[in-house]
Amino acid sequence: MPAATRHDPADLLDAARGGDRVALARLLSMVERGGPRSRVAAGLAYRSGRTAYTVGLTGAPGAGKSTLTDRLIAVFLGHTGEDGHAGEDGPGGPDQAPGGGPSGDPAAASAGGTIGVLAIDPSSPFTGGAILGDRVRMQDHALDDRVFIRSMATRGQLGGLAVAVPDAARVMAAAGIPLVLIETVGVGQQEVEVASATDTTVVVVTPGWGDAIQANKAGLMEIADLFVINKADRAGTRETRRDLESMLDLTELGEWRPPIVETVASTGQGVDALWSAIGDHRRHLTERGLLEVIRRERLEREVRQVLVARIDQRYGVLRSSPPSVAVLDGLAAGELDPYEAADRLLALVASSDPDGPPVDLPGGRGR
Amino acid sequence: MPAATRHDPADLLDAARGGDRVALARLLSMVERGGPRSRVAAGLAYRSGRTAYTVGLTGAPGAGKSTLTDRLIAVFLGHTGEDGHAGEDGPGGPDQAPGGGPSGDPAAASAGGTIGVLAIDPSSPFTGGAILGDRVRMQDHALDDRVFIRSMATRGQLGGLAVAVPDAARVMAAAGIPLVLIETVGVGQQEVEVASATDTTVVVVTPGWGDAIQANKAGLMEIADLFVINKADRAGTRETRRDLESMLDLTELGEWRPPIVETVASTGQGVDALWSAIGDHRRHLTERGLLEVIRRERLEREVRQVLVARIDQRYGVLRSSPPSVAVLDGLAAGELDPYEAADRLLALVASSDPDGPPVDLPGGRGR
Repeated sequence: MPAATRHDPADLLDAARGGDRVALARLLSMVERGGPRSRVAAGLAYRSGRTAYTVGLTGAPGAGKSTLTDRLIAVFLGHTGEDGHAGEDGPGGPDQAPGGGPSGDPAAASAGGTIGVLAIDPSSPFTGGAILGDRVRMQDHALDDRVFIRSMATRGQLGGLAVAVPDAARVMAAAGIPLVLIETVGVGQQEVEVASATDTTVVVVTPGWGDAIQANKAGLMEIADLFVINKADRAGTRETRRDLESMLDLTELGEWRPPIVETVASTGQGVDALWSAIGDHRRHLTERGLLEVIRRERLEREVRQVLVARIDQRYGVLRSSPPSVAVLDGLAAGELDPYEAADRLLALVASSDPDGPPVDLPGGRGR
Repeated sequence: MPAATRHDPADLLDAARGGDRVALARLLSMVERGGPRSRVAAGLAYRSGRTAYTVGLTGAPGAGKSTLTDRLIAVFLGHTGEDGHAGEDGPGGPDQAPGGGPSGDPAAASAGGTIGVLAIDPSSPFTGGAILGDRVRMQDHALDDRVFIRSMATRGQLGGLAVAVPDAARVMAAAGIPLVLIETVGVGQQEVEVASATDTTVVVVTPGWGDAIQANKAGLMEIADLFVINKADRAGTRETRRDLESMLDLTELGEWRPPIVETVASTGQGVDALWSAIGDHRRHLTERGLLEVIRRERLEREVRQVLVARIDQRYGVLRSSPPSVAVLDGLAAGELDPYEAADRLLALVASSDPDGPPVDLPGGRGR
């Protein structure tokens, strides 16, 4: 590629579609960094009309999510034939384009046998270690042309991550990758939200885990389309299953009751069944026309995050203006409380020219 | 207290000032929940002119933060004499009021021998277990009238936590508690930010920890006023200290070089030295007039969070209006990408009546 076009999102997207992995990596770096080019890249990807089916994996620390992701990649590769299509039983294969976009595109079809992985790294300086070891192992698959693995750091604020990850998945989709696994290492609020903003959300627990935590099970019920009891060769598996079942019994469910799959990721046991269960959920969503519904809801939440990030950015521009400084002075002097100060600043932001100088995303992505 | 006033923030604050712990607990619940009453309570607390000196504790998972907090409470209690004032060497004692508020208030003085602890619980459904055990132990101190411990869940979005925790610390201050420890269990981005939005931030690491993580040390250097190597009876302590020292050598520091204190929280070893080091940092800030500077910066960041939360809330009201729905329809149809949609919604939000119906905080606190 000529040097002049190496940073042009449209050129990069063309190259990525043609199988240029470096171009795809560069696009994903753009999206991760944020800024005007990120916006162009994400906009192009959105308008490509191609979507990927997304599967989120989240779970307790040490539950084995990375190993499970590793195994799911292996199952995917085993099920993917020479024709580039995954087997009927799993979630693989090209996705329908929403909004009437092109669906039978040859590039997409030829890339039907690829899988993307977005590994969301911890958002704080404090986690790592063993996790990094898992990642290194997972990278073995990265040598396979049918696998594209990307780590993303979660340093964003104000929805930075909530915007960057769907953008990254869309860029992968636009490059012809029809299936994207989104795996979180951290279990912070942001990470869990990102993993659950997917078509199928897999919640991974381990035997005995249920004893320790009583308070937040309702939160898990809200996000899980599928439960995995990993390390199911350990004592306590039956009790954990019973615990999950009774939680499900107490939860108001729609037409889909999240199945509970037992796996031993270290040996691969049960991972085929997990793969099938993901495929079942995908078919459930597709056959009932629910996929479009949940995707629209998700998109609306995402736009709200973008909106907030842009307003925050606009305030960032306004904050050193004399009226803003006056408000902050009043706050420091104790004449205004933080809420009164925020109200005055809100009025200033709202009355600033909405068609003024372009406000670039992201408000808080990156540091 | 008569039933009619049990939910009135002003009445509750009066009662809390008089030593009514139930009233204080109720105020803190208000602040944690958010909403109009929270705003009133936080505003009253801010205007009380009383502030607390805040100490944040954050660190790697399993580093022993809860045990260390427990020990710090014990040191505080040991140093607090009958006159209700902590010893000269530590961070205890009533804080000066900012903005020229009253400082020598008798209620505050009589409560000078109390310590508040805000324990920030994990933000996701996935963590807990051992942590909860630590908490139960810490609660032993809660039987002591001079200790007020409060757990807060971190379920907020869009700055909910970043607003609720300082509000809670201010409520404690207004009730006459001059020193508040803010300890995070989780190590997500939000939790770390909250712990570092304090007057003195203590970063806790353990021997050998430095080997595992290379990438984010710069982030730790940014937030730490003080490093603790806990479990310093273990192998690798010397290497960890050397590692931290060389990181500090490479960091552009101001006048304060973060000391490194070695502790064994399980036995209490070194905790007195930690207490003194916190006191040193407090004196450093006070004597150089830096305390007011960092507090103003922090308050500005907090107001920005409040601003964003309020705008998000305003959008929440607007989103079902016909113009918003039209934008979202265009998005779903692929006529607009998420960024274009956000821009149009931004224009709608900005042109909505800023003096319209009251927009209650918080935008996203709670679920």
